[in-house]
Amino acid sequence: MSESMQGLKRTHRCTELSHANVGETVTVMGWVQRRRNLGQLLFITLRDRSGLLQLAFGEETDKAVFEKAETLRSEYVIAATGVVRSRGEDANKTMKTGDIEIEVQELRILAEAETTPFEIVENSDVREELRLKYRYLDLRRPDMQNTIMMRSKTTGAVRRFLEEQGFLEVETPMLTKSTPEGARDYLVPSRVHPGNFYALPQSPQIFKQLLMVSGYDRYFQIVKCFRDEDLRADRQPEFTQIDMELSFVDEEDVMGINERLIQHVFKEVLGHEVQLPIQRLTYQEAMDRFGSDKPDLRFGVELTDLSDVVADSGFAVFENALANGGSVRAINAKGMGDLGRKQIDSLVKVGQDFGAKGVAWLQVRPDGEEKSSFTKFLTPETVAAIKERMGATDNDLILVVADKPSVVYAALGALRQEVAKRLDLINKDEYRFVWVTDFPLLEYDEEAGRYVAMHHPFTMPKDEDIALMETDPGKVRAKAYDLCLNGYELGGGSIRIYQGDVQEKMFNLLGFTKEEAYERFGFLLNAFKYGVPPHGGLAFGLDRLVMLMAKRDNIRDVIAFPKVKDASCLMTEAPGAVEQKQLDELALMIQELVKEEEPQA
Amino acid sequence: MSESMQGLKRTHRCTELSHANVGETVTVMGWVQRRRNLGQLLFITLRDRSGLLQLAFGEETDKAVFEKAETLRSEYVIAATGVVRSRGEDANKTMKTGDIEIEVQELRILAEAETTPFEIVENSDVREELRLKYRYLDLRRPDMQNTIMMRSKTTGAVRRFLEEQGFLEVETPMLTKSTPEGARDYLVPSRVHPGNFYALPQSPQIFKQLLMVSGYDRYFQIVKCFRDEDLRADRQPEFTQIDMELSFVDEEDVMGINERLIQHVFKEVLGHEVQLPIQRLTYQEAMDRFGSDKPDLRFGVELTDLSDVVADSGFAVFENALANGGSVRAINAKGMGDLGRKQIDSLVKVGQDFGAKGVAWLQVRPDGEEKSSFTKFLTPETVAAIKERMGATDNDLILVVADKPSVVYAALGALRQEVAKRLDLINKDEYRFVWVTDFPLLEYDEEAGRYVAMHHPFTMPKDEDIALMETDPGKVRAKAYDLCLNGYELGGGSIRIYQGDVQEKMFNLLGFTKEEAYERFGFLLNAFKYGVPPHGGLAFGLDRLVMLMAKRDNIRDVIAFPKVKDASCLMTEAPGAVEQKQLDELALMIQELVKEEEPQA
Repeated sequence: MSESMQGLKRTHRCTELSHANVGETVTVMGWVQRRRNLGQLLFITLRDRSGLLQLAFGEETDKAVFEKAETLRSEYVIAATGVVRSRGEDANKTMKTGDIEIEVQELRILAEAETTPFEIVENSDVREELRLKYRYLDLRRPDMQNTIMMRSKTTGAVRRFLEEQGFLEVETPMLTKSTPEGARDYLVPSRVHPGNFYALPQSPQIFKQLLMVSGYDRYFQIVKCFRDEDLRADRQPEFTQIDMELSFVDEEDVMGINERLIQHVFKEVLGHEVQLPIQRLTYQEAMDRFGSDKPDLRFGVELTDLSDVVADSGFAVFENALANGGSVRAINAKGMGDLGRKQIDSLVKVGQDFGAKGVAWLQVRPDGEEKSSFTKFLTPETVAAIKERMGATDNDLILVVADKPSVVYAALGALRQEVAKRLDLINKDEYRFVWVTDFPLLEYDEEAGRYVAMHHPFTMPKDEDIALMETDPGKVRAKAYDLCLNGYELGGGSIRIYQGDVQEKMFNLLGFTKEEAYERFGFLLNAFKYGVPPHGGLAFGLDRLVMLMAKRDNIRDVIAFPKVKDASCLMTEAPGAVEQKQLDELALMIQELVKEEEPQA
Repeated sequence: MSESMQGLKRTHRCTELSHANVGETVTVMGWVQRRRNLGQLLFITLRDRSGLLQLAFGEETDKAVFEKAETLRSEYVIAATGVVRSRGEDANKTMKTGDIEIEVQELRILAEAETTPFEIVENSDVREELRLKYRYLDLRRPDMQNTIMMRSKTTGAVRRFLEEQGFLEVETPMLTKSTPEGARDYLVPSRVHPGNFYALPQSPQIFKQLLMVSGYDRYFQIVKCFRDEDLRADRQPEFTQIDMELSFVDEEDVMGINERLIQHVFKEVLGHEVQLPIQRLTYQEAMDRFGSDKPDLRFGVELTDLSDVVADSGFAVFENALANGGSVRAINAKGMGDLGRKQIDSLVKVGQDFGAKGVAWLQVRPDGEEKSSFTKFLTPETVAAIKERMGATDNDLILVVADKPSVVYAALGALRQEVAKRLDLINKDEYRFVWVTDFPLLEYDEEAGRYVAMHHPFTMPKDEDIALMETDPGKVRAKAYDLCLNGYELGGGSIRIYQGDVQEKMFNLLGFTKEEAYERFGFLLNAFKYGVPPHGGLAFGLDRLVMLMAKRDNIRDVIAFPKVKDASCLMTEAPGAVEQKQLDELALMIQELVKEEEPQA
């Protein structure tokens, strides 16, 4: 049975009422959070997106209304009209509206509710599968509502800032062309052109560059992007980017606007002051000091280079690494001098998970006693030199990795993070931003036997490194920049190549002939013939930004209707089967699954 | 050859400069619109998104700079630094910055340009195929730029208004589930679940209703939607909706907020005052008076019902129509009394194109002479009565259609529009809004032999018509409303059913068993068990709104990168072929095209 709200108008949301409204007749509508019967008295806690409010029924209440209130159960939707009164001595200090209540005169049950599969309360520990199946109920929980509201506030703040800075919002197509470079595309079969496919965009990169060619000067869009990759904890098949591109700018312009954008958003949404300018590290410095191009600067435990100290140590592990172009680096986990062997082994395992063959360790116990996996192979002088370089004192644990640079950085970067976690060095209330700049333009792909673009093929080399493109391509640095927060990449971008000759060199380095380049990026290269302004841009991952702002660990908590690891939606059960007629219209057939095993889910 | 802009910063866009800046040294950057050599003098008209500005080179100009200026060609991208000076007597009144120019001291050519396939000028009559192939150049034209900028301004104004009204922006999924009801879905094959498909959303309808179930109270989104239908002039496979949903509201609330939204947007973007409240017509009144549920009220030429006048006329055409439940209606095209027979025949053709078997006509020539296709079958009294009812005077043309109601309305509605066009009755500068309300809940689908939802299966019947659902379903009116402008539907929506018993009746009428209903809309129906608030919403077509605001005839002119009629993009050539590997990953095969003829493009 549901009553109509005809003749009633809601006058306030729950927490829009305060002591200032005492004596007023108001109408509120929302969900029953709980009912308390106290004999002659009955209280309903009403919930809407703004918060909670107490509805009171007592001896002065009309009997029929009181009896109706007695039938209310959790999650019923009701409308209540009555007079605001002070709770005086009975004020509930834990509730925003705890000093008032509504003395209800009229009550309507707008909708009844079955018992929900889990209680609608903050920070529930219901398992995520159930939450996602009943997402419409999960989204009622106040912490989820706050997060979704924070996301809305964030996009609003982003838009207002960018509009004030002269950015135009321009929509780019969702049904576009598949390009073989990059991640795997989601494809959309065409009905009108059987056998042909659209692709959903991995980013509006090419379109935003075209908009610069078209003279739009400053473009932005908050836009869905798609990648058909296997999901990690912080990845979704569809994700949202704050995407922008600017003409007639250099790196400083793009970084300057974007740090002011971030400052604005954190102020507007969180009331948090981000100090500008944001600290900068070059890529090389970030790797050397933190073993990561998205370093978490909330704690120290920096990497130290021991290569020179152990160069002639006679220890094969170290000397071989150095001989093969690698290095020997270490971190000092101060305060881990008391770890037992099992705990040390678990740290070694972390290093190994990130590619290290082993992690050499030297522990100075709290009482000064030394234990080590490797010092027996070294002279006392070398051990002393290592200890001095590492600033080793009592109660320290030194972890050493000797390998090629990428492995050393990855293993020690991960160990640094692990050590900080175990030692509880991380202040969860701190927002520590850092720009990482001067990325390498190219990475050497061992498998393909050629260079690949670290960012994308349109990224501009640094002016002073252009000559190196011919002589030492691996050394060329790019006009590229990432903004990182607490160990996550929030966003990144670059200045783009706008000169034909530089672009040609770049394609050469990537091993493309001119014909191949045109086949892949033809319409962009054509567009560039007709007058292209210097331009550059940046894109933020909105999901991750909001996740960090909301201090969530799980990106699904900031997306209203997310997908799970197998890219399915537990609520709608998408993807699903379709009718044969639909396949026929698209001229498609499903291949027989020849493999014996079930497809990976 | 392109020079770097290193060391230069743009200080102004072209039209940010005015007489107030005279004497200042400034740096501007943009595209060469044209070059004029006048012996010792040389002028460049520079263009950026803000407009035009004159750069001057003369005897005082450094020789190298002058010579470089002589090499400039249309669409080169340049940076110029110099002093703003007054043009005094030489002011160009047709240019916003016509009273100033820059006396250039430094000039850099940032990018050269080949000759463009068409000139970059306003309102060019280049054929659309060429414009769309070189969309990045077409988008440089000032009229296109103004339209795209107007679109950006429009979405900004919409968002600011809705945010102030307490709406939350919540993103809904793009990869969702195919539902058999409605238009044809675009499908996206799943790689992880071979043989299964996502669908791109036709609208976020179900998700926005779920957000109301979740207590978000007021939701909005400016969102891409997709329909794989054959395209008409004002349809695109992907289109953008301003989508919203509100809880605890009735029709008046939704219409009230939305007419204030439209008022706000027209004021902000066009400086145009929309008078509130917007006029309302019921669906029946709109059909009876204008033959359309999206009537253009900028002109009269209303329909008149002649059924009673001709009821006993003895003329079989009229009497048969009436006997079969139809009607006889007419318009009076005042001022068309002088049309020749050929022109009248072309009007008859218009009526026939919209389903009429014929259009009877009665012309009163300017000199009072009468000609008619049908009066010979009637008594003089009946003819006189028709003339009187139609207010016929000299120089009038009365056009009569006798048929079943849907045909009468369609044919006369189209004739009304055609007559207004030929008589030039339409003020193109007028924005004439009208709400159309009280739509029928159901339409009878002759082919399927059952009722179908006119809006969608969740639309609420009017309270006073709920009883009719059992006795006379075709008469039930819905709580549905469309906002129309100048003969176009700008948007529409409804209050939704939130009571289980009413929903069940609705599904019965649509011929669904309970099982079928659950199969189609299961998660929404489940959600409704747990406390659903009264709610309703509306969605505007953004593309059409901007098209009308910008006074364009073609929806492609308000979309940066549109598709053409065969749903392809002439610039990117999407859709395209994909690699076999991509198909294999999706477990798909292309069906052989067995038909002999080429597929319809």
